Amino acid sequence: MIKISKVAVIMGSISDLEVVEPCIKTLEGFGIDSDVQVISAHRTPDEAHSFAKSAKEDGVEVIIAVAGKAAHLAGVLAAFTTLPVIALPVSTKLMGGLDSLLSMVQMPRGVPVATVGLDAGENAALLAAEILALKYPQLSQLLEEFKQNLAQKIHNDNRNLQFKLDELKTIN
Amino acid sequence: MIKISKVAVIMGSISDLEVVEPCIKTLEGFGIDSDVQVISAHRTPDEAHSFAKSAKEDGVEVIIAVAGKAAHLAGVLAAFTTLPVIALPVSTKLMGGLDSLLSMVQMPRGVPVATVGLDAGENAALLAAEILALKYPQLSQLLEEFKQNLAQKIHNDNRNLQFKLDELKTIN
Amino acid sequence: MIKISKVAVIMGSISDLEVVEPCIKTLEGFGIDSDVQVISAHRTPDEAHSFAKSAKEDGVEVIIAVAGKAAHLAGVLAAFTTLPVIALPVSTKLMGGLDSLLSMVQMPRGVPVATVGLDAGENAALLAAEILALKYPQLSQLLEEFKQNLAQKIHNDNRNLQFKLDELKTIN
Amino acid sequence: MIKISKVAVIMGSISDLEVVEPCIKTLEGFGIDSDVQVISAHRTPDEAHSFAKSAKEDGVEVIIAVAGKAAHLAGVLAAFTTLPVIALPVSTKLMGGLDSLLSMVQMPRGVPVATVGLDAGENAALLAAEILALKYPQLSQLLEEFKQNLAQKIHNDNRNLQFKLDELKTIN
Amino acid sequence: MIKISKVAVIMGSISDLEVVEPCIKTLEGFGIDSDVQVISAHRTPDEAHSFAKSAKEDGVEVIIAVAGKAAHLAGVLAAFTTLPVIALPVSTKLMGGLDSLLSMVQMPRGVPVATVGLDAGENAALLAAEILALKYPQLSQLLEEFKQNLAQKIHNDNRNLQFKLDELKTIN
Amino acid sequence: MIKISKVAVIMGSISDLEVVEPCIKTLEGFGIDSDVQVISAHRTPDEAHSFAKSAKEDGVEVIIAVAGKAAHLAGVLAAFTTLPVIALPVSTKLMGGLDSLLSMVQMPRGVPVATVGLDAGENAALLAAEILALKYPQLSQLLEEFKQNLAQKIHNDNRNLQFKLDELKTIN
Amino acid sequence: MIKISKVAVIMGSISDLEVVEPCIKTLEGFGIDSDVQVISAHRTPDEAHSFAKSAKEDGVEVIIAVAGKAAHLAGVLAAFTTLPVIALPVSTKLMGGLDSLLSMVQMPRGVPVATVGLDAGENAALLAAEILALKYPQLSQLLEEFKQNLAQKIHNDNRNLQFKLDELKTIN
Amino acid sequence: MIKISKVAVIMGSISDLEVVEPCIKTLEGFGIDSDVQVISAHRTPDEAHSFAKSAKEDGVEVIIAVAGKAAHLAGVLAAFTTLPVIALPVSTKLMGGLDSLLSMVQMPRGVPVATVGLDAGENAALLAAEILALKYPQLSQLLEEFKQNLAQKIHNDNRNLQFKLDELKTIN
Repeated sequence: MIKISKVAVIMGSISDLEVVEPCIKTLEGFGIDSDVQVISAHRTPDEAHSFAKSAKEDGVEVIIAVAGKAAHLAGVLAAFTTLPVIALPVSTKLMGGLDSLLSMVQMPRGVPVATVGLDAGENAALLAAEILALKYPQLSQLLEEFKQNLAQKIHNDNRNLQFKLDELKTIN
Repeated sequence: MIKISKVAVIMGSISDLEVVEPCIKTLEGFGIDSDVQVISAHRTPDEAHSFAKSAKEDGVEVIIAVAGKAAHLAGVLAAFTTLPVIALPVSTKLMGGLDSLLSMVQMPRGVPVATVGLDAGENAALLAAEILALKYPQLSQLLEEFKQNLAQKIHNDNRNLQFKLDELKTIN
Repeated sequence: MIKISKVAVIMGSISDLEVVEPCIKTLEGFGIDSDVQVISAHRTPDEAHSFAKSAKEDGVEVIIAVAGKAAHLAGVLAAFTTLPVIALPVSTKLMGGLDSLLSMVQMPRGVPVATVGLDAGENAALLAAEILALKYPQLSQLLEEFKQNLAQKIHNDNRNLQFKLDELKTIN
Repeated sequence: MIKISKVAVIMGSISDLEVVEPCIKTLEGFGIDSDVQVISAHRTPDEAHSFAKSAKEDGVEVIIAVAGKAAHLAGVLAAFTTLPVIALPVSTKLMGGLDSLLSMVQMPRGVPVATVGLDAGENAALLAAEILALKYPQLSQLLEEFKQNLAQKIHNDNRNLQFKLDELKTIN
Repeated sequence: MIKISKVAVIMGSISDLEVVEPCIKTLEGFGIDSDVQVISAHRTPDEAHSFAKSAKEDGVEVIIAVAGKAAHLAGVLAAFTTLPVIALPVSTKLMGGLDSLLSMVQMPRGVPVATVGLDAGENAALLAAEILALKYPQLSQLLEEFKQNLAQKIHNDNRNLQFKLDELKTIN
Repeated sequence: MIKISKVAVIMGSISDLEVVEPCIKTLEGFGIDSDVQVISAHRTPDEAHSFAKSAKEDGVEVIIAVAGKAAHLAGVLAAFTTLPVIALPVSTKLMGGLDSLLSMVQMPRGVPVATVGLDAGENAALLAAEILALKYPQLSQLLEEFKQNLAQKIHNDNRNLQFKLDELKTIN
Repeated sequence: MIKISKVAVIMGSISDLEVVEPCIKTLEGFGIDSDVQVISAHRTPDEAHSFAKSAKEDGVEVIIAVAGKAAHLAGVLAAFTTLPVIALPVSTKLMGGLDSLLSMVQMPRGVPVATVGLDAGENAALLAAEILALKYPQLSQLLEEFKQNLAQKIHNDNRNLQFKLDELKTIN
Repeated sequence: MIKISKVAVIMGSISDLEVVEPCIKTLEGFGIDSDVQVISAHRTPDEAHSFAKSAKEDGVEVIIAVAGKAAHLAGVLAAFTTLPVIALPVSTKLMGGLDSLLSMVQMPRGVPVATVGLDAGENAALLAAEILALKYPQLSQLLEEFKQNLAQKIHNDNRNLQFKLDELKTIN
């Protein structure tokens, strides 16, 4: 199957894979091709730059950057490209990841990144899909279905809860 | 001049206008049409919903939501649309705006928003332009020029600094 | 047994059930009928609105909204009703739940919610009972008894502690 | 005019008056009688206790407690009464008032208070009105009108904004 | 053995016993009599007040108050006595106990408490001993010995470390 | 007039004088002699040590240490003496002084300091007086009077408030 | 005069100049040559990299990187050089600069930077001097003198304070 | 083998050994001699001072100070020496170690320390090596190799990831 578009998912460390997996699966679910790589802003900076500089030519349309602590990866990539960069901060021991979040979201004037919640791999993928849907209308349809399924899941949870509560009341 | 696309800039309170102005000007600079409105998630929730529900049909391609404190606006709009929603948190007295930032960025699974830094009106507009550039290649060119001007401004600042430092040294 | 009044307990996710259970049991203990549902501000926003809009007509007198992270549920419900909305924030990894707390408590002018402590399911129910006691005097009596039992429990703890300390001293 | 009900507004220090004034005015606007007093949990604890113990008999139906820093006032009053106690934290220099907020909201099991946002005097009064409206239906009507005026104010702000933006565009 | 003095150790909840135990043992080690009780500022406020009001007459010379979350206990006791009150905050899930710490340390003008670190039961007892040593010189001697033992323990740790490091180097 | 006792007030920087002044005045009001000095834990460490080591012999009975940012002064003095050390943290730009507070209060096992609130110069002096009152009963009497005056001031504030409110109501 | 060594002071924005000035003056005072430049990690990343890559060859021995908010500059430079990089975070509105501090100090394994306090321009320069003193012994002598002057300044402050206090006592 | 230089690694408590071990191993890997000791700023202050005062004469060239909570060790050592002091904060329960970090990094004017990230033992050693490399060029070469190995490790992680992803795709 030919994938609609290409999203690059760059993680700063292989230890971020757990956060990245739901991201990859969600992209897959939307038929979006993902190029997943470990590139560190601090340990392989040359790769970070050459990746970011050529990303547009290489057919990448959205970049997702995943990192923790002094999480510079998203900003470092955004410095070299005008593609939208989604920043996915990873939780840490220091206040649960406030360091990762602030290092990503508080970018200086002129170089924005699009930050999602801590460890929110699925949401990073969904945001990428929403962005791509402007160009690829078929994604728009899939996103609407996703939104309906999301609601449906809540409806189901609610229905199951009612059964459970009824049982509780019967017991009491 | 016909504008390329339409970005809706929704602010939760007229008091956020100061943060919104650089956002509007930047969109203007990219030739992007902006529909700027005061709609409150809590005080005019029906307008928030009807706006978000019909935004796509009304030709809006990206939404920028501006709010402070328990800043629900971006999330409330994202609940009703699959358009990309950029969340622009406004600084407050409580830890300088950590309330606004966390209320925006920590969205639940399934409903992402793209959060930029506190009071970062210009960056919200630039992120919108980067997103739209996937569909409108002429924006891509303008973004490259913007990036070059940004660099040029730093170069100029650096040159002026050298003159200033030379003077200081001569005096000393 | 006919219940005195109806309190709606709305949780944003089925995963909040652990926090909600002591809330339901406490309401039950006061003979207050509870309508417990999973409704998400972001994933089933239409249900949230239709619930809140018709809550008063449906005989609900107090709403308890339970949510975590960017916890908009209480605010979203309060936007559509003038019933008192109690906000029950759920603890998270990010600073132990400061995100949930701030997203709930820092509501804008004109749309208050009544926030209780993190994970404080029992207290949310007690606050509901205190509110309802203004109208239903029999609750007032039950609340006084609850307060006395609370004190009694501390007295008992203290008495047991004295035995324990005496033993310790005898051993030493 | 006979007032509908009595709300006690207790502030821990006369310096909190600025935060209390919009609270009193809002209660007044709803025709609610207010008994406003300076009583300190730490400096006049006996008054705090005797006030709280007799509040119900004295015809008070809701208590609003206003305090800053190690803000114990709401909790101290709640310890002696089963009336609903609304906690209104006052902003401070330490993280903008996080000390006041946490000292109020994080009450132990069994003794809830209803916390509103920092310096949110008007919201404290509105919450009191919402609580009293369960018993006094005429308040319910006034709250609906208040909500409509709130929305109307946003509509007006939006209309004025459109004029302002049109002017800006004409100038540009 | 007749104890030198009496320190009251008041804990807000029996669940704080783990933090209190090293406190009691340390007092014991200094020959200081301890009166340990569970008294809650919010659940048994009358006991809190009557305890504090009569503490001086009852021969108490220093009070140690142990509590968590909205930890009012120290302040509530200090409101009724001019005895020195040591505040011992207990760690919690919310930022590790910042709520407990701020609720204790940020007391208003005129009513100080002496706050020690989170869960620092031993230090609370030592501070009590230092305070009592002004009146009971024999404690001063014991405190000097404690300080020397403390240093000795570090010396021993250091000596053991050197052996360990030598082994490591030999192995390498 | 012969002063009852000697309290040393050590400030880490002359810039802390504003916080120290109410401290000195309050000590003076209790007839307590104060030895006020600028000694820096980091810039004049030898003076800090020699001061702390000989403080007891020099007739000092309580030490108040005033410092901001990485506020080590109280801890450094406490390392060399078993006199009670009161830590008075000074507010800063970083989260309003959380750095000063945490650097003081979170002392390791074995070396306590008695921390009061940020910029709470008067409370530091009162705590010193409470500690000294164990030995000097005349201070106890003065502290009781201070407590009564404190209450009286609140009573006066309350009386004036009632006049003010009456005027407001007459006007309205 | 021939300068001993070369320290590069790189600031991310010309707006950081106020923080940088005491840094430059202090280096000057130690006879250390400074190469001060505005280079932005995000706006002129190529300059950042080429600067860092060739810094050692260009005779730079220590780098001081000055930046605020998502302050990546120090980390970006450290990625390309093994010279010691001193990170000087600049205070901001968000919690007084916690964003700047955490973005700098929480670097990943393998790529350290040496972080000093917020806005601590002078300390950054002193740390550079301490580092260089290992190689240039004459700096060691100057640092000792600086330390003595620092102590002397405190001594003077203390002496002036004693005069001031004497006057106050005479007046009283 | 004769070691190039001597780095003193001083830990405030033997419980910090886990954080110190990667530090020692890294120094060892660079052929740097380490003098590792337990010296407490608060429990063995005399040892801290005599160590710091004579460190330079004893051939120490860089000091690494490891401590948690009110972590004064680095500052206390820096007060007595002009050698570069690297501060290594240890994570705690309170906000994950913000207390340790702020107590170290926020040093007053004139007495800098070089702070690395929480628990970053390896980075502390690397920073020491970078500092020493100014004087010992052979370290410079080793640091370059370390940097290359670091990059190589990321390359390997990336290669392994590609295999893993290919497998995943094949399975799907």
